[in-house]
Amino acid sequence: MNQVAAETRGNEARAVDLSRLFDPRAIAVVGATESSRAVGGQPMHYLTTYGYAGEVFPVNPNRETVLGRKCYPSLADIPSGCDVVLIAVAARLVPDVIRQAGAKGIPFAVILSSGFREAGDEGKAIEAELITAIKETGIRAVGPNCMGVLNIPKKVHNGFGQGFGVKDYSTGPVAMATQSGGYGFTLVRNASRAGTGFNYIASVGNSVDLNVLDFIDYFLDCDDVKVVTAFIEGVSDGRRLLELGRKALERNKPILVWKAGNTAAGQKAAASHTASLASSYALYQAAFRHGGYVEVDDYEDLVDLAKAFLAGTLPRGDRVGLVSGSGGAGVIASDRFMQAGLQLPEFSATTKAALRDMLPPLAGTGNPVDISGQNTKDGKSLSNAAAEAVLADENIDMVMVRSGQTTGSVEAAQSIIDIARAADKPVLVATVAEDHLPAKALFDAAGLPWFLTVGRAATAARALADFSMRQQKWAVRPRTIQRAFPRPELSFPAGETFLSERASRDVLAQYGIPLVRQEFVPANAVDRLNLQSLTFPVVVKVNSPDIPHKSEAGAIRVNLTTPEGVRSAAREVIAAARNYDPGARVDGVLVQEMAKGTELLLGAADDACFGPIVLFGLGGIFAEVMADVVYRFAPFDRLSAQDMLAEIKGARLLQGYRGQAVADLDALADIAVRLGWLMSDYRDAIESIDINPIFVNGSTILAADALIALKGRG
Amino acid sequence: MNQVAAETRGNEARAVDLSRLFDPRAIAVVGATESSRAVGGQPMHYLTTYGYAGEVFPVNPNRETVLGRKCYPSLADIPSGCDVVLIAVAARLVPDVIRQAGAKGIPFAVILSSGFREAGDEGKAIEAELITAIKETGIRAVGPNCMGVLNIPKKVHNGFGQGFGVKDYSTGPVAMATQSGGYGFTLVRNASRAGTGFNYIASVGNSVDLNVLDFIDYFLDCDDVKVVTAFIEGVSDGRRLLELGRKALERNKPILVWKAGNTAAGQKAAASHTASLASSYALYQAAFRHGGYVEVDDYEDLVDLAKAFLAGTLPRGDRVGLVSGSGGAGVIASDRFMQAGLQLPEFSATTKAALRDMLPPLAGTGNPVDISGQNTKDGKSLSNAAAEAVLADENIDMVMVRSGQTTGSVEAAQSIIDIARAADKPVLVATVAEDHLPAKALFDAAGLPWFLTVGRAATAARALADFSMRQQKWAVRPRTIQRAFPRPELSFPAGETFLSERASRDVLAQYGIPLVRQEFVPANAVDRLNLQSLTFPVVVKVNSPDIPHKSEAGAIRVNLTTPEGVRSAAREVIAAARNYDPGARVDGVLVQEMAKGTELLLGAADDACFGPIVLFGLGGIFAEVMADVVYRFAPFDRLSAQDMLAEIKGARLLQGYRGQAVADLDALADIAVRLGWLMSDYRDAIESIDINPIFVNGSTILAADALIALKGRG
Repeated sequence: MNQVAAETRGNEARAVDLSRLFDPRAIAVVGATESSRAVGGQPMHYLTTYGYAGEVFPVNPNRETVLGRKCYPSLADIPSGCDVVLIAVAARLVPDVIRQAGAKGIPFAVILSSGFREAGDEGKAIEAELITAIKETGIRAVGPNCMGVLNIPKKVHNGFGQGFGVKDYSTGPVAMATQSGGYGFTLVRNASRAGTGFNYIASVGNSVDLNVLDFIDYFLDCDDVKVVTAFIEGVSDGRRLLELGRKALERNKPILVWKAGNTAAGQKAAASHTASLASSYALYQAAFRHGGYVEVDDYEDLVDLAKAFLAGTLPRGDRVGLVSGSGGAGVIASDRFMQAGLQLPEFSATTKAALRDMLPPLAGTGNPVDISGQNTKDGKSLSNAAAEAVLADENIDMVMVRSGQTTGSVEAAQSIIDIARAADKPVLVATVAEDHLPAKALFDAAGLPWFLTVGRAATAARALADFSMRQQKWAVRPRTIQRAFPRPELSFPAGETFLSERASRDVLAQYGIPLVRQEFVPANAVDRLNLQSLTFPVVVKVNSPDIPHKSEAGAIRVNLTTPEGVRSAAREVIAAARNYDPGARVDGVLVQEMAKGTELLLGAADDACFGPIVLFGLGGIFAEVMADVVYRFAPFDRLSAQDMLAEIKGARLLQGYRGQAVADLDALADIAVRLGWLMSDYRDAIESIDINPIFVNGSTILAADALIALKGRG
Repeated sequence: MNQVAAETRGNEARAVDLSRLFDPRAIAVVGATESSRAVGGQPMHYLTTYGYAGEVFPVNPNRETVLGRKCYPSLADIPSGCDVVLIAVAARLVPDVIRQAGAKGIPFAVILSSGFREAGDEGKAIEAELITAIKETGIRAVGPNCMGVLNIPKKVHNGFGQGFGVKDYSTGPVAMATQSGGYGFTLVRNASRAGTGFNYIASVGNSVDLNVLDFIDYFLDCDDVKVVTAFIEGVSDGRRLLELGRKALERNKPILVWKAGNTAAGQKAAASHTASLASSYALYQAAFRHGGYVEVDDYEDLVDLAKAFLAGTLPRGDRVGLVSGSGGAGVIASDRFMQAGLQLPEFSATTKAALRDMLPPLAGTGNPVDISGQNTKDGKSLSNAAAEAVLADENIDMVMVRSGQTTGSVEAAQSIIDIARAADKPVLVATVAEDHLPAKALFDAAGLPWFLTVGRAATAARALADFSMRQQKWAVRPRTIQRAFPRPELSFPAGETFLSERASRDVLAQYGIPLVRQEFVPANAVDRLNLQSLTFPVVVKVNSPDIPHKSEAGAIRVNLTTPEGVRSAAREVIAAARNYDPGARVDGVLVQEMAKGTELLLGAADDACFGPIVLFGLGGIFAEVMADVVYRFAPFDRLSAQDMLAEIKGARLLQGYRGQAVADLDALADIAVRLGWLMSDYRDAIESIDINPIFVNGSTILAADALIALKGRG
């Protein structure tokens, strides 16, 4: 392992060009048969009868023809110019097929066969051989144990299973990469039935070569993909996930991601170790929030959000204007949009005057506008007129219209379409009842996003605002993270599991992290200690690399106010430590001043997927009980650190709450930045760092405990 | 105001019998016309053409006939035997119509007319006159300003507007009471279109007589109503809301309630007063959780939950067995059911053995069961067979099957129906794709609940489990709350806004609430205080009924360790108090021992809607910043109090977390019970009570501050 690169812009990342995989001039099907129940038979049927325009070369030594096509005994015998080999033979034969394909110059393989690592030890050995063959040939492979890849417009149904048999998918600028073939296609079929058209779908299977991130990356480059969707259970390279999030912002294409498998993982709370707080789903969520990802967790979300983004206009912010057909509906809409964390600002005086002019006297001209009673004026929809007025308001970033009059007639539907087209802000329409068929058809044709319920419209509005605001933030961020101070040269003892608190403090001090004042008193000098440099009250703790959790060992005494109290506490904690672990190395005690203020927590760890991370939250027992912690990926800059500080639920505690001193957030952010560099610089040696608690009292910030866990154990 | 009754069983409450309102033998329509655009014309059309079997008497002095029926000049002229008068005349005429109806002996009025309190001062005066007329006649009235009442099976379309014009609602044992006529009918129409049949609907309008709770109450009594639904923005009698929740549990009928208007209300956080924490929506939610309410917030929820409850079988608990058609789908289902807080226990050894026997070797026999690969065995659905085996498991309370094979064919659908019929546990089916039409039709006909997504199935499972577990809890609860101690006789000073801390403590002490030890030192004795009875460190606070918030006034000093320190602190706080409010009555200082332990908050208030309430949460600044507070309606018993203590998010802090002493929850519950009685006994005098903080340290529980606000102000 080595030092992680500081953040770089996603633009520099180059995706693997998969255009010939999705749009092959010719396809060889190894293991081709006629049987529509066989893995090697289904794609033969689809490729020969659904309208695929390229060549199909069945390969099977036992047949002369397959479905009327000349069948070849081996890949060596097929004509040249083949871009994809589809493999549906027994697992043990696959590595050799890859080698033959390599010899033939075929650039892509889609391996439908199963029986690899998912099938036990024998399969694992075959998979290892397959990986070798792939590396030797340079072929780019999908699978094994996948369902295949699908190019809907070009009728490339290169796979098997129910999902590939569907002939009449609607097409559209949406693509999906899925780690679960079965569930991914259920999702696609449901979304397709609900009106979302797809161009590309890939089931990645065991991902021995091309993985789900390669596909996302490629889709972000495709001109005919505007929205990328993904079903994932986990990735191995969290940093690339982050990078693709930034690329999504730059390409102006959201990645709608369904992350499954979140509740079982990381739930076992280990005793008191910072790393145990970092449940892996929380890190994924942090990564998603960092970039252009939008989480979905049902196909209905996917359909709604795809629709909202495909409309093509992003709001500048999260300030929504609501137009409602009745008071009750306005109440519901307010509830839902506020629950989604969106703002419903007052309209400007100009807008209010315009609304008063056009609406009947009893109508409400606040936000939401309430078009109660009268529906139309001079034959025109008052809801639509109000929406147009609200769109012009400079305090408003997008408009939702909820009114039967907007959706109940073709004329009204067309008029809101015209208004939306003329606007440079998003217009969302809800609730569209199931019997408003003509309006739905018009909206769909015009690309105006409509929603079955107000709640769904609010979810879509939230997603649009999030994406846009992250995009604006990312646009002005520095391309790389500059380090603000030189890298301290440190060394760590080999074979140790923990550093003692004293040694941990020394490391933090090298990185400029402020610590409570202390004196170290050797074990044999306890009776003679005098502590002239410290101010009472003080804390006494044992110092030992073998006792990382001093409270558990009873080896800490707090709130001591006299020298004699300190001396007897020192004797007690040394005795307690030796009693707790007779083999522990105890070189003395630390006597530390007691800090005051708000008790916070800073931690860092080297995550297996995401690399160096920093976490921040309320300290003490509240950290775990209230689970009020947030994450950043290190290294990061001061701006990111400040965002992180503001993200905890208890952030008000830092803002001068109830007469406390306002925390110096610049200084605290600087400490978090330094901790991030420490974790990044020495990730080869350090497993995790706990600073719990760190006390913040106005501009006085002091780490009151420090524990560094090392990787060198054993 | 007087003392609230202790909780009584809902069974004793009697609903107003509304059977003749919904099923009238004859209806008079005052203001009847032919125009289908007029309020008095629409019901004439519906009642005469949709199939209503009773008599319809149009009343209008300006017409001979209406729609071919003889029209009467006034109510006095109609034949007798009329059960309902429908009123659609100008507001100012309505009181007189009510009097005429009274003279005619008509028991029910439905007042569609608007122009009452919603229309300003003139309308308010008419409404007052209307209320008088209603009281004088004893007529039970719906409205005014309502849309009407609807009995779908009997074709009684006694109202106006789009919702009443629908002719082909499907019928079913569901009823709705709605405070928003417009939105309520949108909800009914959407739900009806999605397959939920209704028998009764009532729009309550201004509710000058019959209100939304009267209708819920009546529906709970109706044999042809199994599920009650309601759309409410607020009620005036929170205690009755609670009572109906208990009645719902006893009648085994859920109340699916959409509570709207939650985000604007109660959001202004007042400075430091307990009552300001009691945002009104939180109280509604507490009331809902107390009884047979299930919150919904879209018609999709309503449809799903009605379906789940109408199936008629409740689970004993929240332990779900999942059967899934693929691994990926099983992951999704686990996520969703665990996110809904349901349990997915291990199957018994018997079940596992049965699953191993029936399933292919690669299938997973854990929970979720994963029927990967093979679909059927001997021509029968393996998913269904697995579901049947899981249903027999004693660790499992209900089963969800998620498999295309269960829903993809008529045979498989019929087989899961047969299995569900033979079981005494709920069976839920998801995901049912939109093209599984034959299975859907079979499921609907058989009343087997199916869901479009796994997430929706999880929501339904959660609701079934909640209802059932509350029902079981309620069944064993005592019928009335016994007081465990005699009512102390207290008196409160007239004209005061607050009691001083010393006086507040005296009140709490009378109710047996333990307090930190203290001495009161008169202002003129500060220089001579000696404090022999107290242990250092101590706190010094000013004592004054005029300075309720001592911190704000700088009139508190903590952590004092010497008599001299106490004396100078006492002088300082008195000076600070006089400086803060020169007019304040300052009679001395309180010197109190400092308590240790977990800092909690207990409070009480007399809520305008719900009456006496108690709140409990984490104390200090965390109470408000983390909003970790829960509520109970007083008086309540020890069991309720113990439930309350377990409900806060930080409950782990009381359970011996990280080596702290385990809190004596019995003793703490007892204190909460006593506080509840105090608030109930003296709600005429007391507005609110703050005990913030109260320290819990094992079995030592001590209130460290006390503030009672009185109603006698001014």
